[in-house]
Parts: sequence; C-alpha cells; structure tokens
Amino acid sequence: MTATDRQVSIVEVGARDGLQNEQTPVPLTTKLALIDDLAGAGIRTIEAGSFVNPTAIPQMADSDALFATLRRVPGVTYTALTPNIRGLERAMAARVDEVAVFAAASESFSQRNIRCSIAESLQRFEPVLAQATAAGIPVRGYVSCVLGCPYEGSISPDAVERVTRGLLDMGCYEVSLGDTIGVGTPGSMQALLELLLADIPAHRLAAHCHDTYGQALANILIALQCGLRRIDAAVAGLGGCPFAPGATGNVATEDVVYMLHGMGFDTGIDLDRLVAAGNAISAALARENASRVATARTRRRDARAQDAAATR
Amino acid sequence: MTATDRQVSIVEVGARDGLQNEQTPVPLTTKLALIDDLAGAGIRTIEAGSFVNPTAIPQMADSDALFATLRRVPGVTYTALTPNIRGLERAMAARVDEVAVFAAASESFSQRNIRCSIAESLQRFEPVLAQATAAGIPVRGYVSCVLGCPYEGSISPDAVERVTRGLLDMGCYEVSLGDTIGVGTPGSMQALLELLLADIPAHRLAAHCHDTYGQALANILIALQCGLRRIDAAVAGLGGCPFAPGATGNVATEDVVYMLHGMGFDTGIDLDRLVAAGNAISAALARENASRVATARTRRRDARAQDAAATR
Repeated sequence: MTATDRQVSIVEVGARDGLQNEQTPVPLTTKLALIDDLAGAGIRTIEAGSFVNPTAIPQMADSDALFATLRRVPGVTYTALTPNIRGLERAMAARVDEVAVFAAASESFSQRNIRCSIAESLQRFEPVLAQATAAGIPVRGYVSCVLGCPYEGSISPDAVERVTRGLLDMGCYEVSLGDTIGVGTPGSMQALLELLLADIPAHRLAAHCHDTYGQALANILIALQCGLRRIDAAVAGLGGCPFAPGATGNVATEDVVYMLHGMGFDTGIDLDRLVAAGNAISAALARENASRVATARTRRRDARAQDAAATR
Repeated sequence: MTATDRQVSIVEVGARDGLQNEQTPVPLTTKLALIDDLAGAGIRTIEAGSFVNPTAIPQMADSDALFATLRRVPGVTYTALTPNIRGLERAMAARVDEVAVFAAASESFSQRNIRCSIAESLQRFEPVLAQATAAGIPVRGYVSCVLGCPYEGSISPDAVERVTRGLLDMGCYEVSLGDTIGVGTPGSMQALLELLLADIPAHRLAAHCHDTYGQALANILIALQCGLRRIDAAVAGLGGCPFAPGATGNVATEDVVYMLHGMGFDTGIDLDRLVAAGNAISAALARENASRVATARTRRRDARAQDAAATR
C-alpha cells in the first residue's frame, strides 16, 4: 500500500445519526461536549446536526444554536444534513462547512422516511446542490438501504447504482452507502461494490454500516479491500433508525479504528481519547456503551484493579 | 469457487468452551438438550465435554455421564478435550468420536492455564496422540493466544508456527488457532495465516475467534479468504475464559452462519433452528443471548407483533 492508500478517514456521525433518535432531549451542552471530545480525539469530519423539520425530528431542533456556539477546531469539517432549500439556508446562516442530502435505494423506504419517491427526492436535491455549489459548500450524498430494506427486503445493486449515479451527477462529491438495517454481509457488500466500482472511482464512495446483525466490521473490511477509504461510524455505537424496525446503532467508531490501526491504516485518531469520548457520552445518556473495544478496555482495567487490590 | 470450496464446517464449541466457565452448575439435562438442539439444527461437529480434572473445572465433571446418555445423531461427531492419558482413557470409555489436546502459543498462558511450559505440554500430548491414533480416534489440536496473550501482549507468528507444527507432526489432523482474548485484527490474522500457510495446507487449520474487541467476524472473513474452511463458534456467543482477564465469549455461531450463507457458503445448518437453540440455552442459563443475529430477529419479530397489534 502507498502512504495515501494507508489513510482512512472516519466520518463521525454519532452527534447526528447517533443522537437523533434518543427518546429524551439531549442538552445542547452535552452535544457540544461530545463534538469537542471527538475533535480532540483527532476526528476530522464530524456530522454535528441536521436542518430538518424540527417537528419531525425534535432532537435536531437546536442545530442552528449548536453551530452558532460550536468551538471550531482548525482542520475539522463540521457537517449537517439539509433535505431542502430551507434546510440549506439555515445551514448556510449557521456557517456549516459541508452539507448532505439523503436519498434511499428503496422506494418504500423513501416514501416512509422522506415522504416522496426516489425520483422526487433527487429533483428536490437539485436546487440544494446548485445553491450549495454556488456558495462553495461541498455536498455529500447519502443512500440508505443499499443492502436491504425493512419493507422490501433485498434491494438490487442496480437500484443503488441509479440513485448513487444520480447524486454524483448532480454534484455530490461523494456518496455514502448506508446499510441502514445492517442486514448486509461481505457477500452482498462485495457484489454491490463490484457493480458500483465498474464506473465510479472508489474515492467517491463511503461505507456506512450498522451493526444490527454483527456484520458491520466484516462489511467494512470488504469496502477497504475494494479501495474505499471513507468510513462512517458513530462513537459508542450511538444510534438506531426510527423507520427501520429492529435497527440498532451504527458501527462503533472505536471498533472500526481498532481494526484499521491493526491493519496498518492511518486514521490520525487517538484511540484512548476516542474511547474516553464514547464513555463520556454513554454516561451522559445513561446508555450502555455499544463499542466492544470500549467495553473490553473497561473490563480489563477493572480486572487489573482487582488484581492490584488482591495483591496489596 | 468450486463446490467443495463453498463448504464450510462449523465446530460448535458452545457446550464445552461455552459452558465451562458458567458460575453455577449447568444441569446435565440442559447440556443434553443443547447438544440435541445443535444436532437438530444441522451442526455436524459438536464439542460436548472435557475430560479434565473435575476439581479444576467442575462444570465439566459430568462429561462421562453426558457421553453415556447422549442421543447420538448419525453423521454428527461428538468430541471432547483430553489433556492427558487419564483424560483419553475416560474419553475412550465414554465412546467419544474425536478428542482434542490444547497447547498455547504463549509461555505465560501455558503456565497459568495448564501449569507447564509449551514444550512440556507437547511432550505430555505425545502419548495421548499415540494411544488415540492406535485406537483410530482422530485428535484435534488447539493453540491458544495465537494473536495475543493477556500476560505477554503480542505473540510472534513464529511462536504460533512452532507449536502448530509440533501438534501436526505428532499426528493432530488439524489445529484450531485460538484468538483467546479476541485482540486480533484482520491485520494480525492475515500476517499469521500468511506465515502458517507457507508450509501448512489450509485444510489442516481452523479459526477460533473470540469477539471481545468485536473483530471476530472480520478475522474469520480473512481466514476464509485465506482458504480456511473450518470455523469454531459457540451458539449464543456462550463462553469466556477464566484465565484471560476481560475475555468475553466466543463468536456467536448464528452470526458466523449468517455471514457464511450471505457469502454463498454451504454449512448444512438451518439458521432458524440454530437461533432457536441459542435462545433456548440463553433462557435456561438466564443469560443474555450474545448473538447479534438472534437479537435482531427477536426485536424484528417483536416490532412486527406490535405493528400487527396496532393495526388490529
């Protein structure tokens, strides 16, 4: 591998995808502390909010306030979701570094999640792309349900290819491929990527895996082997999807980083500080930390403390 | 892949490796029901007991009784651990189909786990191999700590190669490579297998991964890519290791099988029945099912039941 080939960048989605479905409101100060911790751990792309309808997703209603008070660490890109022009305008007023639009590879999921067809969603994103591009703001595209849909079951790679191509053609600099309900396996991930990579360069794709069926790291490994170098993850495995029955959280950033470092990839991330960030937000939310790496480290530390106490 | 290349056999270790560290005694009837459920699900190799010193591992003290009362399903191999001649004699009296000896790649772990050096352990196994072979009983070898040791940290692939070679040379038909504390990554697994496969055929190696750091499936994926076709796993992710601080259970068989089927591998296993077996033993032990696949299926079923109730 060349030096560039060894660099993997994590897109940390814990503060948005991770928190948006928390049942009780997460205080702004908690969100700001999380984002600060993540930047301190060396994360360079942090999805920090979402300019969606506050009635639909109340947990993200404070995104304007969040971006207004955010301590911006130089070199860190703070991003947000913008489903439409109204969202983009709010994002621009809030001085968001980068925005994202989100489509689905499944018609049923598109209807339930954003209440329009896939084709309508792409039409809706076109003016967002045009205005963002004119303002010099990079736009990321998300495609959900790329390896399966809670309503339709399996999704054809051709359907994923069409919507991915649509987002890239209208100006998204990259598309994040979401296994929203975590049903994919290395088999379906490889089949999908082989199709996509036939005419899309690997650097324009990112992998976004949920760990519902425990397959996330194996699927990310396939993505890496296929040349992808941008991986979405959420610290402490925060998250879940209200429109995806049985969906658990995102793959935990700690577990991804542990794997990447073990494979000789460079992420620029300090795993100890990342684990601390995950433990802090888990404690703040009174939520079990879903990162295996974080849990193993805590157990090991406890075991050592017990040993030390026993030998005293 | 050829048809043979698509066959993966699971060595189910839940009834032995999985149960041996349970704090409260597991009734013989519970063990027998588990083993029967596993055979019913299509598992063809079941590690059912251990003829070790009952004082050291009380949970396995009933292995003689277990094998005496076991309902033997034709085509299923029922195996047991035999650390020495005394154990082998008990295993032969109990009509065990196959036995296993267990060494470590780490001197410190060998001393703590079986109270002798690696070299001494190999010497101790030689008469076991000789007598088993004379009786026509296949012997499997285990090597623990192949990707790391709780006392020594990293373990060199050369150390693993030496003990693996020793076990194969004395007549083990296969060696199971154990990442006992689950610290391995696809990077260390690949480095190890590349070294071993330089002079050991893939069909003489098996992968035995613990999921402590969430890396098990990714590591198994590497093993499959390297040509290994025998994978150890424990239904419901049963297990842990008393000599390995912070070690959690084995990788869950359900999650491995889900991945294998998704990759087009043939295991002969009925995943629904396997999930049922895991749910049954988890309920019997009042233990949370550690399989992600089992958990996701239960949640999805509950969500569907709620939907059905809501629309009535």
